Amino acid sequence: MYDLLVIGGGPAGLSAALNARRRNKRVLLAAKETISSKLRPAGRIENYPGLPGVSGPELAERFREHAVATGVEIRKEDVLNLQRGKDGFFVMGKNESYEAAAVILATGSPQKALLPGETRLAGRGVSYCATCDGMFFRDRDVMVISQLPAGEEEAAFLAGICRKVYYLPEYKGEYNLPPGVELVSGKALRLEGDEQLERVVTTAGEYDLSGVFIERAGLPPEQLCPGLVTVDEAIQVDRRMATNIPGLFAAGDCTGRPWQIAKAVGEGQVAALSAVQYLAEQERANKPG
Amino acid sequence: MYDLLVIGGGPAGLSAALNARRRNKRVLLAAKETISSKLRPAGRIENYPGLPGVSGPELAERFREHAVATGVEIRKEDVLNLQRGKDGFFVMGKNESYEAAAVILATGSPQKALLPGETRLAGRGVSYCATCDGMFFRDRDVMVISQLPAGEEEAAFLAGICRKVYYLPEYKGEYNLPPGVELVSGKALRLEGDEQLERVVTTAGEYDLSGVFIERAGLPPEQLCPGLVTVDEAIQVDRRMATNIPGLFAAGDCTGRPWQIAKAVGEGQVAALSAVQYLAEQERANKPG
Repeated sequence: MYDLLVIGGGPAGLSAALNARRRNKRVLLAAKETISSKLRPAGRIENYPGLPGVSGPELAERFREHAVATGVEIRKEDVLNLQRGKDGFFVMGKNESYEAAAVILATGSPQKALLPGETRLAGRGVSYCATCDGMFFRDRDVMVISQLPAGEEEAAFLAGICRKVYYLPEYKGEYNLPPGVELVSGKALRLEGDEQLERVVTTAGEYDLSGVFIERAGLPPEQLCPGLVTVDEAIQVDRRMATNIPGLFAAGDCTGRPWQIAKAVGEGQVAALSAVQYLAEQERANKPG
Repeated sequence: MYDLLVIGGGPAGLSAALNARRRNKRVLLAAKETISSKLRPAGRIENYPGLPGVSGPELAERFREHAVATGVEIRKEDVLNLQRGKDGFFVMGKNESYEAAAVILATGSPQKALLPGETRLAGRGVSYCATCDGMFFRDRDVMVISQLPAGEEEAAFLAGICRKVYYLPEYKGEYNLPPGVELVSGKALRLEGDEQLERVVTTAGEYDLSGVFIERAGLPPEQLCPGLVTVDEAIQVDRRMATNIPGLFAAGDCTGRPWQIAKAVGEGQVAALSAVQYLAEQERANKPG
C-alpha cells in the first residue's frame, strides 16, 4: 500500500513524485517509458528557468536522477485501470496491481482521437493489453495498431498464440517483428462489427479479424478511470490540481495547454502538495474517537 | 510602449518574462529588488526539479541570468499604481511611468495586514512614495515605517525636506540613517486622525505627525490595481492565470498557496503564454477592415 501512486514519468510526474517524497510519503511512480517520450527528441530547451539551453534528454535524465535521489521508486508499468475503493485506489497495471491512498495522473498530452467504432467495440474484440487478453484470441486472426515500438513486443507475444498477427505501426523507424507477423503499411480508418469486432478498415485494405490490440502512449483518461471528468480531452482540474474524484489529482499536459515543461513541473508540485494535504485529512478522519 | 510589463523579480516574474521574450515580445520586468527577497535567505532547495540542492542565491542568480540572456529588460522600479486604459495599461512607478499592452503581476506573497486606519487615511497623510509626495510635507514632522532597508533611503530623502523624520523599521539589521533621523524602537499599532493623519500610535509611544510613509515589499494587490478581485488576500486567477481584469494576469505566491518555486515558475510560464495569446487577439481585433 503506497501513500501516493504517480502515473507518468514525464516532467509533471517526476516533479509530483519528488515533492511528495520530500514530505516523506511512500511514493511509487509508474511509467510506461523510463524517459518521457516528449523530451527525448527535443533539441535545446530554452525556457526551463535556471537551465538555459539544456537538451531534452539531459533534462529528462536530471529530473529522473533528482526524483530517484529523493527516494522515489520508479517502476516500468503500463497502468490500465484505476478504481476508487473505500480506503483508496486499486490500480491495475499490465504487470502487477497496486494500492495507493491517493493517485496523481501525469499521463501526458491527450491521446489522438479514438478510431471510429473503438469505444463501442472496446471489450468486444478491441483490447489494450495483449498479455491480459491474448488468450481470448487463440488461433484467431488479430491486428496490433501501435503508436509505440512497445507494440512490437505485443505482436511477438500474440504471434505465439494467434493464427495470424498483423502489425500496423503509427510511428516511423525500424520494425523488429518475428516471422509470421505481417506488416501493414497503411493507416487505420475505422473498426467495424455489430456485437463484436469483425474487421479493421485501413488505407491498405480491409482485414477480417477477431481482435485488435491498440497500443498508445497512454489510455484516454476517461478509459483509465471511469467517471473522470474531462473538458476538450483534458482532465478537468481546479487550482489545487484536484479532479472531480476525491484523492485523484492530475498534472502536466493531461490537464490541458500550454504543453510546456515548466507548467508541468509546477503543476506536479501543486498536485503533490494537495495530495499530501488530502492524505493528512484522511488520516484525521480515520482516527478512532 | 511595451508588449508586456511584468511586476516582480522573483521566480514567477522571471519565468513569465523569459517565456514572453521567447515569443518575441517586448518585455520589461520591473522589480523592487534585483534578487528575490524570498530566495536570498533560503538554504538548500531540494525540490526544484533538475537542480537538486541548489542554494537560494544561486537559483535566483540562474533565473536572472537566464532571463537577461533571453533579452528581458530588468529595471529596479517600485510600481505604485496600474490603470487600464483603452490601449493597455498605464503603469506608475516611483521613478518613471510606463505603458504596456498587457501586465503580469508576480508580486510575491500577500503583504501583512494593513495598519488600522491606513486605508482610510491613504492620500490624507499616508503615502507610499517619499520622492512622489515628500514635498507636501516640507517643514513638517513625518515617520517612515519600513519593512525593508530601502526605507532608509526614503528617510534620508525626507530628512532634506521635513522638519523631523522618525524611522520605524520592521526588519532587523544595521540601520544606516543620516543625522537628524530618529530611530523608533517599537511596533506601529495604528494610524489616527479625522480628515487627515494626526498621529501614529506605537508600542514606544504616540507621535503627532503630518505624514507617514509606509515602505513594504509590495503594495496590497487591490491598492496596486483598483478593481482587482482577491480571495483570502490572494489574487483570483483562472487556470490561464487571468485575473478579472482583461489583459492583466498574475503568477506565483500572489495567486495563493503553495508558496513554492516550481509552482511560481510554472504559473509564470502559463501567465506569459496567456498574455501572448491575449496580445494576438487584441491585434486581430484592432486590425482595420
